[in-house]
Amino acid sequence: MTSKWIKGGTIVTAADTYRADLLIKEGIIAKIGIDLSAEAEAEGAEAVDAAGKLVFPGGVDPHTHLDMPFGGTVTADDFATGTRAAAFGGTTTVIDFCLTTKGKPLAESIATWHRKASGKAVIDYGFHLMIGEINDEVLAELPAVVNDEGITSLKVFMAYKNVFQADDGTLFRTMLAAKDLGAMVMVHAENGDVIDFLIRQALEAGHTDPIYHARTRPSIIEGEATGRAANLAELAGARLYVVHVTCEEAVRQIAEARSRGVDVWGETCPQYLTLDETYLARPGFEGAKYVWSPPLREQRHQEVLWNALKSGQLQTIGSDHCSFNYDGQKDLGLGDFSKIPNGGPVIEDRFSILYSEGVAKGRITLNQFVEMVATRNAKLFGLFPQKGTIAVGSDADIVIFDPSAERTLSAQSHHMNVDYNPFEGMSITGVPLSVLSRGEYVIRDRQFAGELGTGRYLKRSPYTASSGEAPDRTAASAKS
Amino acid sequence: MTSKWIKGGTIVTAADTYRADLLIKEGIIAKIGIDLSAEAEAEGAEAVDAAGKLVFPGGVDPHTHLDMPFGGTVTADDFATGTRAAAFGGTTTVIDFCLTTKGKPLAESIATWHRKASGKAVIDYGFHLMIGEINDEVLAELPAVVNDEGITSLKVFMAYKNVFQADDGTLFRTMLAAKDLGAMVMVHAENGDVIDFLIRQALEAGHTDPIYHARTRPSIIEGEATGRAANLAELAGARLYVVHVTCEEAVRQIAEARSRGVDVWGETCPQYLTLDETYLARPGFEGAKYVWSPPLREQRHQEVLWNALKSGQLQTIGSDHCSFNYDGQKDLGLGDFSKIPNGGPVIEDRFSILYSEGVAKGRITLNQFVEMVATRNAKLFGLFPQKGTIAVGSDADIVIFDPSAERTLSAQSHHMNVDYNPFEGMSITGVPLSVLSRGEYVIRDRQFAGELGTGRYLKRSPYTASSGEAPDRTAASAKS
Amino acid sequence: MTSKWIKGGTIVTAADTYRADLLIKEGIIAKIGIDLSAEAEAEGAEAVDAAGKLVFPGGVDPHTHLDMPFGGTVTADDFATGTRAAAFGGTTTVIDFCLTTKGKPLAESIATWHRKASGKAVIDYGFHLMIGEINDEVLAELPAVVNDEGITSLKVFMAYKNVFQADDGTLFRTMLAAKDLGAMVMVHAENGDVIDFLIRQALEAGHTDPIYHARTRPSIIEGEATGRAANLAELAGARLYVVHVTCEEAVRQIAEARSRGVDVWGETCPQYLTLDETYLARPGFEGAKYVWSPPLREQRHQEVLWNALKSGQLQTIGSDHCSFNYDGQKDLGLGDFSKIPNGGPVIEDRFSILYSEGVAKGRITLNQFVEMVATRNAKLFGLFPQKGTIAVGSDADIVIFDPSAERTLSAQSHHMNVDYNPFEGMSITGVPLSVLSRGEYVIRDRQFAGELGTGRYLKRSPYTASSGEAPDRTAASAKS
Amino acid sequence: MTSKWIKGGTIVTAADTYRADLLIKEGIIAKIGIDLSAEAEAEGAEAVDAAGKLVFPGGVDPHTHLDMPFGGTVTADDFATGTRAAAFGGTTTVIDFCLTTKGKPLAESIATWHRKASGKAVIDYGFHLMIGEINDEVLAELPAVVNDEGITSLKVFMAYKNVFQADDGTLFRTMLAAKDLGAMVMVHAENGDVIDFLIRQALEAGHTDPIYHARTRPSIIEGEATGRAANLAELAGARLYVVHVTCEEAVRQIAEARSRGVDVWGETCPQYLTLDETYLARPGFEGAKYVWSPPLREQRHQEVLWNALKSGQLQTIGSDHCSFNYDGQKDLGLGDFSKIPNGGPVIEDRFSILYSEGVAKGRITLNQFVEMVATRNAKLFGLFPQKGTIAVGSDADIVIFDPSAERTLSAQSHHMNVDYNPFEGMSITGVPLSVLSRGEYVIRDRQFAGELGTGRYLKRSPYTASSGEAPDRTAASAKS
Repeated sequence: MTSKWIKGGTIVTAADTYRADLLIKEGIIAKIGIDLSAEAEAEGAEAVDAAGKLVFPGGVDPHTHLDMPFGGTVTADDFATGTRAAAFGGTTTVIDFCLTTKGKPLAESIATWHRKASGKAVIDYGFHLMIGEINDEVLAELPAVVNDEGITSLKVFMAYKNVFQADDGTLFRTMLAAKDLGAMVMVHAENGDVIDFLIRQALEAGHTDPIYHARTRPSIIEGEATGRAANLAELAGARLYVVHVTCEEAVRQIAEARSRGVDVWGETCPQYLTLDETYLARPGFEGAKYVWSPPLREQRHQEVLWNALKSGQLQTIGSDHCSFNYDGQKDLGLGDFSKIPNGGPVIEDRFSILYSEGVAKGRITLNQFVEMVATRNAKLFGLFPQKGTIAVGSDADIVIFDPSAERTLSAQSHHMNVDYNPFEGMSITGVPLSVLSRGEYVIRDRQFAGELGTGRYLKRSPYTASSGEAPDRTAASAKS
Repeated sequence: MTSKWIKGGTIVTAADTYRADLLIKEGIIAKIGIDLSAEAEAEGAEAVDAAGKLVFPGGVDPHTHLDMPFGGTVTADDFATGTRAAAFGGTTTVIDFCLTTKGKPLAESIATWHRKASGKAVIDYGFHLMIGEINDEVLAELPAVVNDEGITSLKVFMAYKNVFQADDGTLFRTMLAAKDLGAMVMVHAENGDVIDFLIRQALEAGHTDPIYHARTRPSIIEGEATGRAANLAELAGARLYVVHVTCEEAVRQIAEARSRGVDVWGETCPQYLTLDETYLARPGFEGAKYVWSPPLREQRHQEVLWNALKSGQLQTIGSDHCSFNYDGQKDLGLGDFSKIPNGGPVIEDRFSILYSEGVAKGRITLNQFVEMVATRNAKLFGLFPQKGTIAVGSDADIVIFDPSAERTLSAQSHHMNVDYNPFEGMSITGVPLSVLSRGEYVIRDRQFAGELGTGRYLKRSPYTASSGEAPDRTAASAKS
Repeated sequence: MTSKWIKGGTIVTAADTYRADLLIKEGIIAKIGIDLSAEAEAEGAEAVDAAGKLVFPGGVDPHTHLDMPFGGTVTADDFATGTRAAAFGGTTTVIDFCLTTKGKPLAESIATWHRKASGKAVIDYGFHLMIGEINDEVLAELPAVVNDEGITSLKVFMAYKNVFQADDGTLFRTMLAAKDLGAMVMVHAENGDVIDFLIRQALEAGHTDPIYHARTRPSIIEGEATGRAANLAELAGARLYVVHVTCEEAVRQIAEARSRGVDVWGETCPQYLTLDETYLARPGFEGAKYVWSPPLREQRHQEVLWNALKSGQLQTIGSDHCSFNYDGQKDLGLGDFSKIPNGGPVIEDRFSILYSEGVAKGRITLNQFVEMVATRNAKLFGLFPQKGTIAVGSDADIVIFDPSAERTLSAQSHHMNVDYNPFEGMSITGVPLSVLSRGEYVIRDRQFAGELGTGRYLKRSPYTASSGEAPDRTAASAKS
Repeated sequence: MTSKWIKGGTIVTAADTYRADLLIKEGIIAKIGIDLSAEAEAEGAEAVDAAGKLVFPGGVDPHTHLDMPFGGTVTADDFATGTRAAAFGGTTTVIDFCLTTKGKPLAESIATWHRKASGKAVIDYGFHLMIGEINDEVLAELPAVVNDEGITSLKVFMAYKNVFQADDGTLFRTMLAAKDLGAMVMVHAENGDVIDFLIRQALEAGHTDPIYHARTRPSIIEGEATGRAANLAELAGARLYVVHVTCEEAVRQIAEARSRGVDVWGETCPQYLTLDETYLARPGFEGAKYVWSPPLREQRHQEVLWNALKSGQLQTIGSDHCSFNYDGQKDLGLGDFSKIPNGGPVIEDRFSILYSEGVAKGRITLNQFVEMVATRNAKLFGLFPQKGTIAVGSDADIVIFDPSAERTLSAQSHHMNVDYNPFEGMSITGVPLSVLSRGEYVIRDRQFAGELGTGRYLKRSPYTASSGEAPDRTAASAKS
């Protein structure tokens, strides 16, 4: 393991922007200084020229679905292709969703997920765990899940009736259990009962095209479910994380809950910031490429989402990467939009789209960008300060970024294992040139330089007042 | 100028918390590393033992009134006693309000303020400028104020009728002018016309006690004026900073404006977070010690303010330091509450109260603490990254802080030049042990080690999209 | 059937207050005039002296539970005792809830309810119908329910898990079906899943006292369910009526939905306007008398409810009459608060409490009083103009009311068939002296003068734009 | 004075809709009955056939400017032409604004206004009084204004800087004085200081076209001023009436204040419900016809206004009639939009436009229509029950209305003394056929049948809890 000397770059963290050298030893950031040439020489460190470049902490993607079975098929990217593409895009940590099955031990599902990742991942990774039911067995297993496996975030689905959906009692009990363990509850917030009926109604009426995916999941019921989850979290005194927020209704619910002191956080995704519902209405079956749940919305929601990010009402950017090939997978939904596998490939472009649309277009600052793609995510999910920042003692997960290069996103050039790119043709400012994971190149001058299986599993910490995040209200009151 | 080696401490910034050494050269943070003993030795650096201590960036107090004439008297603290007390408390930068007089050139007022500070300040300082009128002369002077003097924040009073108060036209035109220059407009948001009448009405009814100070300035009209200023800023496309926010009504206005994308920021002060209106009703004339404008509020507002800080609806903590002796100054208002000089001594305890009530009681995180007392203030007021953070290349303004020491606030022990302390008897966790300004001790082991006149005047930068802050909405739209 | 001449009173409607005589023929209001002595004489009408009295339309109570099985017992009042007590209190129409059973034809349940009322009711009555499930059979029956039975309001329970509770899909489909038929959907808005868990948790912790009824049904989840129902109604384009609104959270949801144009209406009850949660904590088992669902709330909610009534955010007053004896019924819950039969006796005092606490205390106007206890209810439930007003051609359901008489509410003097009065000891201004139903005395000079079985079943009209109420948004848009 | 028998019509009030005959004696509604043929014959009453027609109370227009000097000219309609046109349109009462001059006794201005009206008005009328300053003289005169002159509504302008505009102190003191006298304060809510600057700025930039009237009065500052006035009213405990509300921002402020219990009411006008800002941009100088203050808004505000009327957030419809000829008056603003006389002719079409766009299009009900054009206005302004309703004892101000007739609004056919109609070409459903004032024809079968000078001056009542309206919050609290 060679030491590395990143010289002459502009280091950017969630708080700071400054010109400095970095010295990396044993995969850790050992030193930061105006000029570290002497130390680098003494150390025999390999030089990495970052002059004129931005030096970012590697991105932390809090929301991926790799090697996941869904709707009779399996996502196109596994931990090998998915993490490799992530690295190309500047992401050095992913937290993937481990699905569970009712009646089956959680440990079994977790073991399955370890098998999927092991020997394949090229960057470090952790798992969230889906909770589909609460019973004595599940409650008995949870302490080990949190404390031994280091899985400190539990996901509950309010949608996908008869598949993943849990009822409000399950959600509420998960919150109570999570709170006791210092775990966070994540929700997919849409009203699944209503959606289920709307889908059946649409199909009965012969509406089978992709656009009906959007029409059967109106934003009103994302707002409804988001408010419901926030109310339950308020009652439980639990920490809540709402994944993939897409619309004004949901943003408003999160903002109001936060202003009441509720410990709720919101994530949005690049697709909701840049694409809209008209994509689903593209001619033929093209719309299937843009089938996410929640769906793309009317364009007016985009400004609301940007304002929410800027003002702190939403805090993180996830990819919700869940890729399916257009040919052979998305076409399962030909003639029935409800059978189109939900999701799309975003793991690679999450980082760059936010930079280009956010920073380069003046909507957010450089520091906010780092906060949203890396630092806040690491903090909320118990990976900080190991991941998510450039600070002495942290893992040397580093991106050397050219802020002025221009390029065009395309399936022709992307590295995800999927036959289309939802952002095809989008002009982008900024490109990750080299990416280091724990001090080793994974991407070097835009070429893959990593190795399958070098990514390590991350046991994550539960949250407490001292973990770098605001404690929940209950804790605060109890102490005051 | 000796180099310094701060060893073994836990460094805290607005983003990070980590164990590391610091090396300071020429007053600048030159190096940060896990172990800098070799460099320190080579450098002959003086060691500063920080083992078991927190190492904070020096506080930036964005709101002080030193050596200021008010109501026929002059504040008790000047730049000598005031900045010395600030340093004792962990603050290494103050931005003081330069008053102006209608009809007199702005340059003359600024020159006066330079004379007040020069040769006295023991830490670095900048000035805000009060704008009382807008006319061709004022408009002609403003570019030099911003660009040559580096005064990039203009204060408009919506209260103090017939003294400082400006009308809405003046406020709006100040916003337009400020926006063009990259300056920020600050407002004291209370409806002065209504207050003026309520005071006269109270006095006519024979209500002369200090509690009537609170009763003649109800929170409704702070909310009103805050909303008005936010609306005008929205229209002007200007950046707005609301000083000393005290109540739910005002918080709500700021939060709503921010969610619409308005570029508005809010400050609150330790007194509003910890004291309440009952203090004004203390027996005899005791209440005069607690006369601030806006006044202390009912206790229920405190939780609203803490939630607003935690959730990001308010962003900064100022002291609004404006000290008057109880004997000989506050008593100008004996028999007429409206003649009590407004303000109190907070410059020394701002930093520690927020630590103790915020971090130690679990209401905010360590990083949020640094953000609120230092980093955000430096960013908003154009001092970043020179001030407000611990990063390579920044000024070595450093606080060595013992997070576990307990003490009691008191006029007996404070260093402000005033005969009472509004927080008298408050138990506090945490104490600033040593404080460095540009690498030199100002406070060493709780003793003054500085020198009058070593503080330097700070020319501050105008704001732009690249200054480390989110740009205003107009700019963002224009680019997108 | 004698004609009647009501002379010299002050007639009050939802719009008007004026001095006039009334002439009633064939049970109908035939004439209104300044002086109808000539006509009365010609007609041989019986004079009813109303000099110095208010002449109100008889109250319409939109929310009663008579002769209803619940929790292993049956309500203490049946249609005989209940409607007699209603009449004593100034109410001349009740709409009672017809319960249904899953899997059983709706028609069968309706027939059961007809049997309960027939031969007993002393005033006119209609039925709401509970919907517990939606399937092909239910959908097939609904047109006849609405059009033939004249049952134009369908009630869905969001609480009482495993008893009455329906899921969101059922609620939404009921809304769609109701909309097509011109029927209105009523909801009991509390999150039953969460309550179910909280109750079990409380009982497991050994908390069995009545106060735990309130603690296991927090206002947050009434607000949640209210918002959810309003969102679903917005999506369905249906008319929604929220029964027994008790708290600020729910009021806010209704107000926001109405301002978006959603066709939603809210009812509150006398108990929520005058009693509070401390009643549930009374010594011994006394609290059981005050067990309603939703529960009584903290006192601060009362001002919110009054403001909502005054400003039009809530529109109606129901009694939610559901009486159980303290001895022999409420005590089913001794040792387990969850077994206390829910509900209380209010049918008699609804009218007078609203007059006394509302009009006499200056919170609402006389006309608003009539609107809330009679007119709006008749309009919303398809009984107008037959019921709910004093207008030529309307049924002569009339209350002669002494606005200045003082009295004290008590089980000693009330006429409900139950051994306690929740308002025991409350001083009340105003008393219904005589009450006419279709021109015949039911109460004459505070004595019962009616006859069992004279009350008639009322087939109610579906709503349309011309029915006297604002149409739903969808209809409006479609036409514009 | 002949008695009249209105036979066979459908009577509509704010509460009721029913088929009945009316008998009018001595100008008063003496009797209402299913069939009054006997009485009519006995009385020798003249029959008015209303079969198939709606019988409405005559409209009450709470907002007119007749014979008013403005901007160097005088409105085109005086009390003769204006009230005649009002009657043609179905309006039988107007309340006109009496302007005052600083330094001049109020009595003098009132006397002037009496002279303007006297001998000209063909329907009854009252006055509001403008308050431009508060001083000892004004305070001394106010009791007589309210109690002797019966002027119980005082208007304060927050706009028209240097002309009508009063400062916040004056507004607040007017509220306090009004509250003591039972008078209501009306505000024109726009921020005049900001407008004044925007106008000067636009003109300096050479923007002289009518569209700049709208661009210099953005909706943000109507919202701001509305919120400000509501806050001051809340503080004063006064009743507030906001004239001509045009936009979402202002509606939201009123709704929020009402939900807090503030005694605030809002009026909008037909022009804001049906026209929009694009009219101001019509070619040439055509836009001048549509210059109102506040200006016409973007079309999206119209749905907000309709929802606000439907849900009760706004309560009344005024015309703000203030007519100027296009040729010879509006053209004073050729080359300078700020010199275009503000206002337009609406007095005649207010009633019919609300019927056609509101009732006929299904947005509001018949009863809401009557409430908004007549009853609520009479109640709020102290004219009830003499005016504003059809009830025994009320003035026989009656409109016989054909609800199905179609017509087109046009300057060709209107009766206002002005050369254009802002609603030119609008298709309208419904037409007032005959109009009675105190039982006498003013319009008979669409022909003028009145006589100049028969309109009487109306002394209006102060408001109290018993006046038919909800009392202000302070009063309510005081009693409870």
